Amino acid sequence: MKNQLIHLVATPLLIFGLLSGVHAADSDQKNIHALLKRYEQALNDSDTTSVLKLYSRDGVFMAQHNPPAVGIEAIKAAYQAVFTAINLDIKFNILETEVIANDWAFARTSSAGTTTINATGNKVVETNQELFLLRKTDDGDWKIARYIFSTTNPR
Amino acid sequence: MKNQLIHLVATPLLIFGLLSGVHAADSDQKNIHALLKRYEQALNDSDTTSVLKLYSRDGVFMAQHNPPAVGIEAIKAAYQAVFTAINLDIKFNILETEVIANDWAFARTSSAGTTTINATGNKVVETNQELFLLRKTDDGDWKIARYIFSTTNPR
Repeated sequence: MKNQLIHLVATPLLIFGLLSGVHAADSDQKNIHALLKRYEQALNDSDTTSVLKLYSRDGVFMAQHNPPAVGIEAIKAAYQAVFTAINLDIKFNILETEVIANDWAFARTSSAGTTTINATGNKVVETNQELFLLRKTDDGDWKIARYIFSTTNPR
Repeated sequence: MKNQLIHLVATPLLIFGLLSGVHAADSDQKNIHALLKRYEQALNDSDTTSVLKLYSRDGVFMAQHNPPAVGIEAIKAAYQAVFTAINLDIKFNILETEVIANDWAFARTSSAGTTTINATGNKVVETNQELFLLRKTDDGDWKIARYIFSTTNPR
């Protein structure tokens, strides 16, 4: 009887925990912040190889003035094109990060800095806003699943 | 004994279902598609009131060339400014919708059509890509929690 009571209490609690609970550990937030920092560094280094390590294989990169790049091969080509055209010196400001499921999170950021147009050497001041949808792998690593940015410079 | 066996089998199945399972009903997908359709209509009608009904009160609207509008009052002001400046005649193409938690989903779309600049009457062809992060209310309605778009027109 006592065991049954424990069961009656424990099972709903467990189920409630599973239903309501996103099991976001501090380590998730830490890893997401580290991921965004690595992404910033890879952009500033024009380093496609490092960028690709941060993406899910089925990720989508949605760059302004370009059609969406779907899947890791298209993402690779898109970043190679970006880094051929411009050189970035930017800093991300993390506005919010939220773990919304055991294996999904999002991050909203802004970024600001200088873009050098490689063809001309001209430098322009750039400010952007970004939305990242992140997915946790079976190994516990957070990867970029969907990513879109747009300029916040006035028209 | 038989009951115990049923329990031993049923509980892990239930827990597995809760853990792995996002309980996405067909109705969720249907409601998300309907939400996107209503959003398209509200844009084409320049109807801020209808747009606002589709947003979470703590939503964020990230419009190109503007800083993020955070919260329903800022979102209202942002759409009023948009509809004063331009008149849209666009169509959304839903590329993917995925329910990623019991109360979170995302949608990725593209859109194309004509933008009329109200100040001049000039019409420009516009193509955009959009990422929507959606949240389900306690009433079972899906709302726009985060939304960002950027042009896919070449630079």
